[in-house]
Amino acid sequence: MSTPKEKFEIYPIGSVSRAENSVQLQIDEMYRPALKELDGFSHVMVFWWAERFATPEYRQMLTCNPPYAPEHLTGMFATRSPIRPNPVMMTTCKLLGVDEEKGVVRVADLDAFEGTPVVDLKAYFPVCDRVREAHIPEWLAGWPEWMPEAGIGLEEYES
Amino acid sequence: MSTPKEKFEIYPIGSVSRAENSVQLQIDEMYRPALKELDGFSHVMVFWWAERFATPEYRQMLTCNPPYAPEHLTGMFATRSPIRPNPVMMTTCKLLGVDEEKGVVRVADLDAFEGTPVVDLKAYFPVCDRVREAHIPEWLAGWPEWMPEAGIGLEEYES
Repeated sequence: MSTPKEKFEIYPIGSVSRAENSVQLQIDEMYRPALKELDGFSHVMVFWWAERFATPEYRQMLTCNPPYAPEHLTGMFATRSPIRPNPVMMTTCKLLGVDEEKGVVRVADLDAFEGTPVVDLKAYFPVCDRVREAHIPEWLAGWPEWMPEAGIGLEEYES
Repeated sequence: MSTPKEKFEIYPIGSVSRAENSVQLQIDEMYRPALKELDGFSHVMVFWWAERFATPEYRQMLTCNPPYAPEHLTGMFATRSPIRPNPVMMTTCKLLGVDEEKGVVRVADLDAFEGTPVVDLKAYFPVCDRVREAHIPEWLAGWPEWMPEAGIGLEEYES
């Protein structure tokens, strides 16, 4: 891979802390004021850094045969794999509570390991995020039309 | 702001090219294989770098009075403002076409300026991204329940 001509720096704003029945996002003290009014939303998009896959080797992988459709050679941009050029993941989560003072955001579930760096939170706005007529390819026929009520949980990737 | 202890590097995979009736994402040659099979999806989430707001000053702004609700002091994580600690924006777009060879992804609309760096594309999967029961705060009552058919366009921010 040739060296990219430009790069941008992002910083952790907190990290993932997994509990028995929920997942907590522990937000660093300096960023806690940015949580104000988040608790009025039912869902939050959690942006996290897939640190286990942030190696030059993984970041050069551009296609795969996904486990759910191994017969289809698929570009990484057509998947949600953490293996991709920029491993910034985004998971929409059901929001259970926000403690601005302690910097704790509780969500129902999240597909990120303990200690994973969180890089952004964005409130879920149906006007931006909810598509009425969304279609997926025929080779994914039968997949659910909606996010599961509790959200997407952790899948242990082979590493 | 104290210096963050950790940082992660992300790279442009392409850039935004605005045309009269659509927006093109021009994908750099090395990343084009990652477009394979994307054209089977109706929508794509475009991750872009809000370069105009990627200054230390903007990245320290944690609250604002949003133009649509000026009476509410709101944390940046409760907004979709490009002013935020990590200005990685995400816009869901209606996908019009993918030319893998030329590295062109055509979308109906996108709220990013000409030349904006694109850092990731993720296919829109209803099972991850579409929330059946989503609620927004009372002070946003009356906002649409769905994304507009053509998507979210450019709003000229005051700069």
